Amino acid sequence: MSTDIMAEVIEKAKRARRAAPRLAVLSRAEKDLILRAFADALEEQKDLVIEANARDVAAAQARGISPALVDRVILTDTRIAEMAEGLRMIADLPDPVGEVIHGWRLPNGLEITKVRVPLGVVGVIYESRPNVTVDATGLCLKAGNATLLRGGSDAVNSNLALVRVLQQAGAEVGLPEGAVEIIETTDREAAAQLMRLNEYVDVLIPRGGAGLIQRVKNESTVPVIETGVGNCHVYVDASADLDRAEEIVVNAKCQRPGVCNAAETLLVHRDVAADFLPRVGKRLAELGVELRACPRSRPYLEGAKAATQEDWATEFLDLILAVKTVDDVAEAIEHIGAHGTMHSEAIVTGDLSAARRFTREIDAAVVYVNASTRFTDGGQFGFGAEIGISTQKLHARGPMGLPELTSYKYVAIGDGQVRS
Amino acid sequence: MSTDIMAEVIEKAKRARRAAPRLAVLSRAEKDLILRAFADALEEQKDLVIEANARDVAAAQARGISPALVDRVILTDTRIAEMAEGLRMIADLPDPVGEVIHGWRLPNGLEITKVRVPLGVVGVIYESRPNVTVDATGLCLKAGNATLLRGGSDAVNSNLALVRVLQQAGAEVGLPEGAVEIIETTDREAAAQLMRLNEYVDVLIPRGGAGLIQRVKNESTVPVIETGVGNCHVYVDASADLDRAEEIVVNAKCQRPGVCNAAETLLVHRDVAADFLPRVGKRLAELGVELRACPRSRPYLEGAKAATQEDWATEFLDLILAVKTVDDVAEAIEHIGAHGTMHSEAIVTGDLSAARRFTREIDAAVVYVNASTRFTDGGQFGFGAEIGISTQKLHARGPMGLPELTSYKYVAIGDGQVRS
Repeated sequence: MSTDIMAEVIEKAKRARRAAPRLAVLSRAEKDLILRAFADALEEQKDLVIEANARDVAAAQARGISPALVDRVILTDTRIAEMAEGLRMIADLPDPVGEVIHGWRLPNGLEITKVRVPLGVVGVIYESRPNVTVDATGLCLKAGNATLLRGGSDAVNSNLALVRVLQQAGAEVGLPEGAVEIIETTDREAAAQLMRLNEYVDVLIPRGGAGLIQRVKNESTVPVIETGVGNCHVYVDASADLDRAEEIVVNAKCQRPGVCNAAETLLVHRDVAADFLPRVGKRLAELGVELRACPRSRPYLEGAKAATQEDWATEFLDLILAVKTVDDVAEAIEHIGAHGTMHSEAIVTGDLSAARRFTREIDAAVVYVNASTRFTDGGQFGFGAEIGISTQKLHARGPMGLPELTSYKYVAIGDGQVRS
Repeated sequence: MSTDIMAEVIEKAKRARRAAPRLAVLSRAEKDLILRAFADALEEQKDLVIEANARDVAAAQARGISPALVDRVILTDTRIAEMAEGLRMIADLPDPVGEVIHGWRLPNGLEITKVRVPLGVVGVIYESRPNVTVDATGLCLKAGNATLLRGGSDAVNSNLALVRVLQQAGAEVGLPEGAVEIIETTDREAAAQLMRLNEYVDVLIPRGGAGLIQRVKNESTVPVIETGVGNCHVYVDASADLDRAEEIVVNAKCQRPGVCNAAETLLVHRDVAADFLPRVGKRLAELGVELRACPRSRPYLEGAKAATQEDWATEFLDLILAVKTVDDVAEAIEHIGAHGTMHSEAIVTGDLSAARRFTREIDAAVVYVNASTRFTDGGQFGFGAEIGISTQKLHARGPMGLPELTSYKYVAIGDGQVRS
């Protein structure tokens, strides 16, 4: 590894580490003031940001990357206004730090409280979307954490410009030095280095595609919160209200197909396959959805292709839906257990026992009964903001808001208690 | 890596993985029945266990390991009775699984509950104490998890005998196959392999010395809960009640010096150093404590050695105490920040503002005011049982009981809600 890259990563991480204790004791008023200063500065200096962004967009186009990917990089007046609005929304949220989660008194009189505290230094490794730079920084700051960013090369100029705006605006209203740091080297080595800095970084959150997340998970010795990959299912039970089922399947697949909480596979109970599949198939076809079906489903679905084994395991993120007919709720649960990613899973049913079994046995962040998988989202859940959707079981699961960016400590107050 | 070792580790991990969903849906009554059967079987078959243990002890003695280490391996009637009692105590604790942590209703009528669920497969990597085999299995089972054990070579025969007793007793009362597995190879390769099995293992808990914990933390791609290392401090403030301070320091150092929540460094405010150090020094010397003091403290401590830089960072786990005089609470906080391990830290003070500052600024699992650090313990905290003391900030911090061996899922119940 090049010495220069190592030196930069370590220096930034150290700066963030030094800022962490100062951030931990900021009051809500101080943090909200900084967040609003961030928002104002972004709007005031949007031309500077858009200029930097234009260089990224030109470079991306010159490299011939797809228009969809270029779109992820582009910043407009509207997008900058949205980022600023996001920061003001975070300022409006209650401060998670200092919350007494619970407390009790020991028989010897020692009074213990469990108090919410920041995590410390949060590393964020992300790909092309420059809005992550601002969103992640805002959320981490409100939760009292230092933010150590490492964005992708596609948006490097935009990210650096954004961070400079935040750093300058923050410095004027009391943001501790080192509270927001960005690693400028977009080399893979820089990310690899960051993933081994247990001494300075408390947690890493990867934001991006499955490849990035897998790499961070495999290489990082810093604790990781895994986010995002969703191979979600909707299971239509024998007792389902089929009108309701149709709306739920269409919504889960089509309302926004490119996101992690969209459905990728439809499972249908064999008793309703003949009734349900033709009608839902027609509706989906009209909406441009390509169907890939199992041998038992295919006769009911005009124009459907044969599903391959790989289709069951694929997060299409597109207008494609795999379809399988199952014998019963047990087979649905088994299929989801074998192919799901523990993100969001739904059953449509009128049967209480099927609903109870599905919610108990399905191992996923969010399990739905008679609702679309698309609700797995911090905003929809009422969290006010979201840093990502965790698909792991340690620390946080499902939509992560401000409390999920914190830890806790116990404070024990006595009058001379000793252990006998 | 040898194919045989790989094959064994993977096979055991797969068996545990398959058992996890069956364990997750066991009722409290079913789990408690198994725990009590474990306890009865241990007592009934104690001769078989003690026989296996005798082979471990003989082998350890033949290798010439220290009597203190041999003592860790030895199992007696009393120690087996204690393990059985521990299992019955776990049976008496409430079931953490199924607890509704909280719940709310969205504006669209969707009802969301956050429900406690098992983690899945918990891997435990430990050293010489065979009681970990039984304690960890009991706690994991009660929390609905499969247990995948990997003990040290010193106690291999004891561990295998214990696991066989548990497996057989469990099988008769409904314990799913694979719920308790032990990797028989004590080779380092087996542990290394286990640390990469993200597909089958949800979390790894190392139990043992600093070296083991460091190795697991560095090598594991499976999420780790770091336990145990405690370089704990007691800070005696200018306003401290010195009688109280003396009792707390003596208790924190001497009540059980070999454990992680014992104090390793005494910090004293300069204004009380001349009063406090001679008296506490005399008392500690009588109790056989070796003192290693800074230049400002040494004149007040008869017979104290000069402390080295290394002493500030050392977890002595012995009757040794480092002593430093500081200018104020700020210097105490700074010293603890530089040398502490985020375990347990205490201030003795009568001053509210010093107490508030210390509890806010010290970054540790448990921060004490006017009490001994020795209370950092699941039993003392009233948790009923403890799998270890976490010194990390992600997932769990401080004493970990049954709830810390769980995750949660969201269950969302609706009547056809779709996202607009």
